[in-house]
Amino acid sequence: MRYELYYWPSIQGRGEFVRLALAEAGADYVDVARQKGGMAKLERLLEGPRVKRPPFAPPFLKAGTLLIAQTANILVFLGARHGLAPKNEAGRLWAHQLQLTIADLVAEAHDVHHPIGAGLYYEDQKREAKRAAESFIAERIPKYLTYFETVLERGRGGGSYLAGARLSYADLSLFQIVEGLRYAFPHTMKRLEKKIPRVIGLRNRVASRPRIAAYLASDARIPFNESGIFRHYPELDRS
Amino acid sequence: MRYELYYWPSIQGRGEFVRLALAEAGADYVDVARQKGGMAKLERLLEGPRVKRPPFAPPFLKAGTLLIAQTANILVFLGARHGLAPKNEAGRLWAHQLQLTIADLVAEAHDVHHPIGAGLYYEDQKREAKRAAESFIAERIPKYLTYFETVLERGRGGGSYLAGARLSYADLSLFQIVEGLRYAFPHTMKRLEKKIPRVIGLRNRVASRPRIAAYLASDARIPFNESGIFRHYPELDRS
Repeated sequence: MRYELYYWPSIQGRGEFVRLALAEAGADYVDVARQKGGMAKLERLLEGPRVKRPPFAPPFLKAGTLLIAQTANILVFLGARHGLAPKNEAGRLWAHQLQLTIADLVAEAHDVHHPIGAGLYYEDQKREAKRAAESFIAERIPKYLTYFETVLERGRGGGSYLAGARLSYADLSLFQIVEGLRYAFPHTMKRLEKKIPRVIGLRNRVASRPRIAAYLASDARIPFNESGIFRHYPELDRS
Repeated sequence: MRYELYYWPSIQGRGEFVRLALAEAGADYVDVARQKGGMAKLERLLEGPRVKRPPFAPPFLKAGTLLIAQTANILVFLGARHGLAPKNEAGRLWAHQLQLTIADLVAEAHDVHHPIGAGLYYEDQKREAKRAAESFIAERIPKYLTYFETVLERGRGGGSYLAGARLSYADLSLFQIVEGLRYAFPHTMKRLEKKIPRVIGLRNRVASRPRIAAYLASDARIPFNESGIFRHYPELDRS
C-alpha cells in the first residue's frame, strides 16, 4: 500500500517528523502537495464537506481508508506498523510521551517568532519576538535538551536510544529538533551542545543511518527556510 | 488498584482533563499533591535521580508500575482501560487526534495571557497579551469551536459524541474547553455559542452525566482561578 502524506509543500514543518519516519521505514509514499495538482487534493480533504473525520490542520496521512492527522498520532500509527516503537504497552506509552514533549517544544519554537499570533507577519511582532526569544534561549531550550540528555542517561538502552535499546520515532524526532535548533539558533546551540553529549551522539547515529542519510541527501528533504517552524532570524539568537 | 494522579494542587490546568476521565470512569484514585506531604512526592518523581522514565512536567499518573505523563497520553491509557475510547484502531486514532487538537487549543489558551514567556508574570506582558487576545478571540476560538461543531455534524454518532455513538475522553475534554472559555472569555462565548449548538449540546450532556455532575459539585473540583490555564482577565475579553 502506498501512503499519501499531505503537508505544505515548501516547508519541513511538522510534516518533517512524518517524512523522517516514512524514510526510516522505507515506506512507499507520495508527498501529495508536492505533486502537480496536489494542493487542491490537500484542500479537498481539509475543507471538503464529505470528509467524515476531517483534520484540523496538516500534516495528515492517508493509509488505505484511514485518514490520520496530528503528527504524534500519525507516528503512533507508523510506529506500530513499521517497528519504530516498542511493542509492549509501557514502552509504547513512553515513546509517545517523549514525542508529545517534543511536540510541545516544536510549538514553542514556532511561537518564539510569532508570539502575538500566527495570523500576523513576523515583521508585525518583531519586538515581542525578541523578548520571547530571550526566555526561549535562556530557559526553554536548555530545559528541554537537558531533559532529553537525562532520559538518555537513565535509559534502559544504555544511552543509545530514547525509548530503549532500539530506535523509535522519538529518536528521529529528536534528531530533527537538533537540526532545527542548530539552524535557528546557531550561537545558542554552539554553547549548549557541550552539555548534551548524549543528545548529540543520538543525533549523529540517526544522521548516519543509511535510509536517513539517503533521504537527507535527496531532493525530498526541503531545506530549512523562513516560512517553517525553525527560522533563522539572527536578531533572535544570542552570540 | 488505586491510581495516583500527580498535578499542581491549586489549579484545574491540564490535570483537569485527567480528573474528568477518572471521575467518569468511577476510578479509585488519589490526587496526591492535594494530600499532606503530596507536593514532596510529586517533586521526587519529577526531579528524583532514580526515576527511569522521568516526566517533563505534570500531570502524570502512576498506575501500578507504570508512570505515564502528557495529558493526551494518560487519556489513551485510561480510555483503553475504562471504555472511554473506541476499541477499533480507526476509532482510537480518531479520538486521540481530537484530543491532540484540544491540546493545541489548551496551549494557545494559556499562551494568550503569557505570550512572551511562561517564566514572566502576566503583569510584565500585559500589553502583548492584549494584542494576542485579539487574534485569539477573533480567529482562533471560532476556528477551533466551529471545527468541533463540524465534527459533530458529520459524525457517525448522529451528532451525539465526537468519536462515535458512545462517549469518549474527547467529549469530556471538549466539555472542559467550553467551561474554561466561558470563564475566561464570557463576552466572546456569549456571541459565539449561538453558532455552535452541537458543541453546547454535548457540553450539556456531559455536565448531566451522574458521575460528572457529582464530581463538579464536590470539593474535588477546584474552582477556576487566575493561576490556571483559563484566566478571567476582563481586559482580554471583548464586550
